[in-house]
Amino acid sequence: MQKSRAERLAANADGLDAVVIANGGEPFLDSTFWYLTEQASGSFEDSLAIVRADGTLEVITSVLEEESARAGKGNVHVYVTRAERDGFIKDALKGAKKVGFNVHGTAYSAVEHVRKTAEVEVADASKAVMATVTVKDKSEIEATKKACEISSQVAREIPGLIVEGVSEKAVAAAMDNRMRELGGTGNAFDTISAFGAHSSQPHYMPGDYRIRRGDAALFDFGTKYDRYCSDMTRTVFLGKPPEVLERAYAVVLEAQEAGFLEYRDGAAAKAADLAARKVIDDSEFKGRFIHSFGHGIGMDVHQGIYVSSKSEHVLKEGNIVSAEPGIYLPGIGGIRIEDTCLITKNGAERLTSFDRSLTVV
Amino acid sequence: MQKSRAERLAANADGLDAVVIANGGEPFLDSTFWYLTEQASGSFEDSLAIVRADGTLEVITSVLEEESARAGKGNVHVYVTRAERDGFIKDALKGAKKVGFNVHGTAYSAVEHVRKTAEVEVADASKAVMATVTVKDKSEIEATKKACEISSQVAREIPGLIVEGVSEKAVAAAMDNRMRELGGTGNAFDTISAFGAHSSQPHYMPGDYRIRRGDAALFDFGTKYDRYCSDMTRTVFLGKPPEVLERAYAVVLEAQEAGFLEYRDGAAAKAADLAARKVIDDSEFKGRFIHSFGHGIGMDVHQGIYVSSKSEHVLKEGNIVSAEPGIYLPGIGGIRIEDTCLITKNGAERLTSFDRSLTVV
Repeated sequence: MQKSRAERLAANADGLDAVVIANGGEPFLDSTFWYLTEQASGSFEDSLAIVRADGTLEVITSVLEEESARAGKGNVHVYVTRAERDGFIKDALKGAKKVGFNVHGTAYSAVEHVRKTAEVEVADASKAVMATVTVKDKSEIEATKKACEISSQVAREIPGLIVEGVSEKAVAAAMDNRMRELGGTGNAFDTISAFGAHSSQPHYMPGDYRIRRGDAALFDFGTKYDRYCSDMTRTVFLGKPPEVLERAYAVVLEAQEAGFLEYRDGAAAKAADLAARKVIDDSEFKGRFIHSFGHGIGMDVHQGIYVSSKSEHVLKEGNIVSAEPGIYLPGIGGIRIEDTCLITKNGAERLTSFDRSLTVV
Repeated sequence: MQKSRAERLAANADGLDAVVIANGGEPFLDSTFWYLTEQASGSFEDSLAIVRADGTLEVITSVLEEESARAGKGNVHVYVTRAERDGFIKDALKGAKKVGFNVHGTAYSAVEHVRKTAEVEVADASKAVMATVTVKDKSEIEATKKACEISSQVAREIPGLIVEGVSEKAVAAAMDNRMRELGGTGNAFDTISAFGAHSSQPHYMPGDYRIRRGDAALFDFGTKYDRYCSDMTRTVFLGKPPEVLERAYAVVLEAQEAGFLEYRDGAAAKAADLAARKVIDDSEFKGRFIHSFGHGIGMDVHQGIYVSSKSEHVLKEGNIVSAEPGIYLPGIGGIRIEDTCLITKNGAERLTSFDRSLTVV
């Protein structure tokens, strides 16, 4: 019989008596809770999923979520009062001494509360959690593919949305709406729609600026489908761009391909970053690639894997990562090309698709 | 001269040498960072805002966010390497011993990193943070009003969206799209659209179920505007509902008004919950109001204030809170009526508006 998700986590958490996933209040909710419980519904604030060393899963939740909780995995314990909640925590951790937490995904107060209530020693289980959730199973890959198909369709519609004088906000809203119409269940993150010089800020938020001829138009967007995220970026131009941006585009395109070709099961993640960075740093745009080549993608749009020049991650079949080099020229504009990629035995598959050659609308 | 937001926080954090707001990775970002820096842009992962006892504000961020950061408040320190980041943390906390953190809004690993790097003692500053951010200034109230106006307009359009056979997902998507078209900058939270028996799950996620005559249709939704949230719920019916739901509707309506009338500057928050709960528990629906009457609303849709029967919060002019009693009957349906309310000197103002009387489409 195939291992359950909780059993896989327990196997990765060698030396720990239990792993505690502890939600706080919105937005301090750990997607690992939904991964383990396979819940479709619910907000599950202050709920806990506790995996014991034998792979059993205890789910502690409030009466508010009872109906939803019983539809998911695990042994469900429903509390009304905080004292009952504490009692369930103690029971679930009975006999446990060294208990792991997803320390980057759990509020300080939530960890401290469990530590004091169950009198346990806090350990960092974030590596075990990430080793588990970043290797996607079949249903997770299917959901991610669907999310990527939706984004890719919207990417194909971008040229039709760019007309002289349209605002960044208007195009972002139209794209978000189309992702929903196509079956997406909500944005994976706030859509970046940045025109002209604004595109040189990697995390710009769309404003009222209206596009002019010669502007770059950078779109970084993604949808959720069954909780799984897509993430892609395309940069197009309204009319002929300044030559420096045309040259930057060609370099980013070459860099993305160079990094992508390093993606395969067993390869060091940093090889992709270094290969892409070499292309950019060997060009006139040396030093203008100011972020990492990629990151893991799952129920969170940034999940577990850092594809940077210092990454120690070794890629595994079933990892889903972005490939997104960029060049940023303050005052002029920025170029980024990004795809969501599935790591396979002998390479990688781009799950997002849209012509990557220079597109002038 | 009026105090800056950082100075107000310092004044509320009596006995602490500094307050550290430490972002993790998405979604573990603390809205307090944007409150203090008054940033319009940026994702600011791993960035810090440090308020010293004299009210000065130090902002530590990566080169990725430099352009955005310089447009906001505070003394901006830009790092490229993690070592530089650690150096800025040490500098900003030089001489500080007892340092407060927003423990419910900060990842365990982020607090521990600052504690070890700057060799400080961790204190809980969450009460000081909440006392600061829950008293809204003029610009915050204006942004919230705008968000509420957008939601209210969409509420008025709900009857036009409900036709026999329409799915929960389709109505949710249409509502989200309208909020964006009307100027909202994204959902405040995932819209709840629950038909028929599904409406008895307070945190249901919309699915493919299609509405039938006699079904309740519960919508809990809100938008962001300039980062501020609205939050409202309406329950309408397609055709004549079962009589038990008509009776429940009348009780919820009476309970909402009873609680709302307790809202005023200086009143105990719990008075509102108790008043509403009494109405429900005195009816045939005793015990069916399974959550609290309300919560604070700000840049986070659940912010700082709990309006429960055990709350110790004393309401203040400038607090923004929800008023949202409900009755939930598993297998039959649920009723909830919710408004976003601004606490004033002598009462409260509903910022969301839509006919609260029973609406049959």
